[in-house]
Amino acid sequence: MLSALDLARRIEAGELTPRKVVELCADAIAAREKEIGAFVALDLDGARRAAENPRLPATPLRGLAVAFKDIFDTADLPTQYGSPIYAGHRPRADATAVALTRQAGGIVLGKTVTTELASLVPAATRNPHNLAHTPGGSSSGSAAAVAAGMVPIAFGTQTAGSVVRPAAFCGVAGFKPSYRLIPMVGVKDVSWHLDTAGVFGAGVADVAFAAAAMLGRDLRVDRSTPATPRIALVRTHLWPQASAAMQRALDTAAGIAAAAGAEVTELKLPPIMEQAHAAQFTVQDYENIRALAFEYDRHRDLIDGRLRAQLDRAAAISADDYDAARRTASRARQVLADNMAGHDVILTPSAPGAAPHGFSSTGDPMFNRLWTLMGAPCVNVPGLSDAELPLGIQIVGRFGRDHAALEAALFLEQAIKRKTGA
Amino acid sequence: MLSALDLARRIEAGELTPRKVVELCADAIAAREKEIGAFVALDLDGARRAAENPRLPATPLRGLAVAFKDIFDTADLPTQYGSPIYAGHRPRADATAVALTRQAGGIVLGKTVTTELASLVPAATRNPHNLAHTPGGSSSGSAAAVAAGMVPIAFGTQTAGSVVRPAAFCGVAGFKPSYRLIPMVGVKDVSWHLDTAGVFGAGVADVAFAAAAMLGRDLRVDRSTPATPRIALVRTHLWPQASAAMQRALDTAAGIAAAAGAEVTELKLPPIMEQAHAAQFTVQDYENIRALAFEYDRHRDLIDGRLRAQLDRAAAISADDYDAARRTASRARQVLADNMAGHDVILTPSAPGAAPHGFSSTGDPMFNRLWTLMGAPCVNVPGLSDAELPLGIQIVGRFGRDHAALEAALFLEQAIKRKTGA
Repeated sequence: MLSALDLARRIEAGELTPRKVVELCADAIAAREKEIGAFVALDLDGARRAAENPRLPATPLRGLAVAFKDIFDTADLPTQYGSPIYAGHRPRADATAVALTRQAGGIVLGKTVTTELASLVPAATRNPHNLAHTPGGSSSGSAAAVAAGMVPIAFGTQTAGSVVRPAAFCGVAGFKPSYRLIPMVGVKDVSWHLDTAGVFGAGVADVAFAAAAMLGRDLRVDRSTPATPRIALVRTHLWPQASAAMQRALDTAAGIAAAAGAEVTELKLPPIMEQAHAAQFTVQDYENIRALAFEYDRHRDLIDGRLRAQLDRAAAISADDYDAARRTASRARQVLADNMAGHDVILTPSAPGAAPHGFSSTGDPMFNRLWTLMGAPCVNVPGLSDAELPLGIQIVGRFGRDHAALEAALFLEQAIKRKTGA
Repeated sequence: MLSALDLARRIEAGELTPRKVVELCADAIAAREKEIGAFVALDLDGARRAAENPRLPATPLRGLAVAFKDIFDTADLPTQYGSPIYAGHRPRADATAVALTRQAGGIVLGKTVTTELASLVPAATRNPHNLAHTPGGSSSGSAAAVAAGMVPIAFGTQTAGSVVRPAAFCGVAGFKPSYRLIPMVGVKDVSWHLDTAGVFGAGVADVAFAAAAMLGRDLRVDRSTPATPRIALVRTHLWPQASAAMQRALDTAAGIAAAAGAEVTELKLPPIMEQAHAAQFTVQDYENIRALAFEYDRHRDLIDGRLRAQLDRAAAISADDYDAARRTASRARQVLADNMAGHDVILTPSAPGAAPHGFSSTGDPMFNRLWTLMGAPCVNVPGLSDAELPLGIQIVGRFGRDHAALEAALFLEQAIKRKTGA
């Protein structure tokens, strides 16, 4: 994999150029893209030209190549939202996240595969760790592209679990910041109280670097030894649905963190958190059929049957049900804040297990829905595995405390590396 | 003016057809549009064809003609956001609000003038009450079109005061619902924590009817006598900046409400509300330059100098300033809720006075900024005036209690009508 932070430092030191990074990407793409299928649009020549700008090494992103999930609007590249409804679509403007990335000195290399309209309908991308497995979704291409070393930074979005889950399945770091820390302007909206842009990178310090550079925020965690976190080990009511390997992995991660000095306390969340998990479905579905009202009304035949069936069911949700779900979410956020008073972060699975075999599903976001609804920063920490497939451990921070979440994730990542000798 | 509710009832009763309503609009447009300039795109023939659908009289909106501010995306009509950057732009999809309006049986008659990128830069629309005065902005065309009887329902958006202020200046009812009650998908985003879609109509019952029909929510207030509200009279720290006529009008409105039986109590809000007012500028500007990052970077020369200067200043706002402003807003929302414990609604000016003379400004949204930041439902109640120009009185409800706000607004509107004999 290409570490964004390492590449940036080498560019800063004059050992490497942005152009050379584009070539590293191009080499990996030439070697692996055919079998993986992470991209829907590539502009290597445009990236090469952009990389010649001599001012790039002094920018926050140092001229690094970046990819965007194909639900971020781009004026210079097609944007099709994974849907035949948008075949050949070229927006008039870049999404804010794309514009901010360019302002920060990032070079947009291409657009990555999204599932259809960022839904649970699987796309064709394969998992770089084992081509017979899904890379997860809906940010399938962004996770796979980073995992295959085809780009150092890729952006995705999460409405249920579409950043943390594919990051876990592909063995990369995935950072879903606090709700709307990354502006969503110009990103195809599928559920406005949930949609959150996030970033993939080789490791925790890489995603922190990329988010910090793009947002102009103090999010970097690579400049010092991370503080020792107070960790709440949260299994949630879904614990019985985690695979045996994931259950072992979470206990392993907790043990490694404790051995490294972290305070690790088992925390059982109150029943309202289970209700909030259920409420996430209601919020997502109610908003989804409204966000896609035009597509549903005018292009029903061009929507995959599985998504259409989901939208048909969503049509039955009443405004009262939706309002009740949002009230539950609001109360749960307060309860979560209260329960987190003595802890910096939560340690919990990123997914029920490793990437499922086959392509009939992108896996289940059950271990992500609650945290997305809470708006909490979530980081997938890579480093553990099950029979050569990655297993992701999730660090969940408190809303608005993204730096602390990243720092705790780095602490865990470093401890796992020391323990596993990676 | 065309009362949406009256027209809908007459269609329901078989006394009128959707087609005939289109003709009423067409007649008013033929008579007044040339001097007022409320529309940027009209599709009267398309509206006539759509109006022939025999199922329309049974729909929630009864086949009524509706107009949208030109920052709502429409697949069938140009959408130019009031900016030469988007000359000839035709989106691929309808905004959710447009799609929901069509689902509810509304006919999209045209797109109304917005100020450039929904900013404070004035547009060419004139006030139907006096052509030498501004109609307000940024939803200039929607307010003016309703005021001139050219359409019974028009949608706009408010980031500072762009629904309530033009409604006040044009003497129509304007309803800015609770933050995001109307989905914002497909609306040009200029400040994501503030942008709120709203609706203009001849009177309070009309905007309530339109919002209820479009959202499938229990918002109608015309089915019974409105409950008698407990009103907090709030002058805010900006009171000295209200015109003498507005100061008198607010006291008149308070007196009329009290005489009609309402409990009216003067409420002085704590200092944090003044800080929140100031914070609104920071949130709006910080988000504005990011929401418009593409336009600012690529088409700087096509942005009006006044907006460009505002964006230039916005570039100096730090993430820390922005985060502090959002924390202030969050605390203020709690304080406002506490202060509202014994009241149903707030009574406060909709604007500093009547519509200013000339077209150098769309007027000042000073009496709207705070409430938009609070996410509170706001209703402009028409009926009072100053030297033949309308003066707007604002009812502000509690977040999420839109029905109560509309009901209190209707109570006041009816009391004013009885008093003034209108």
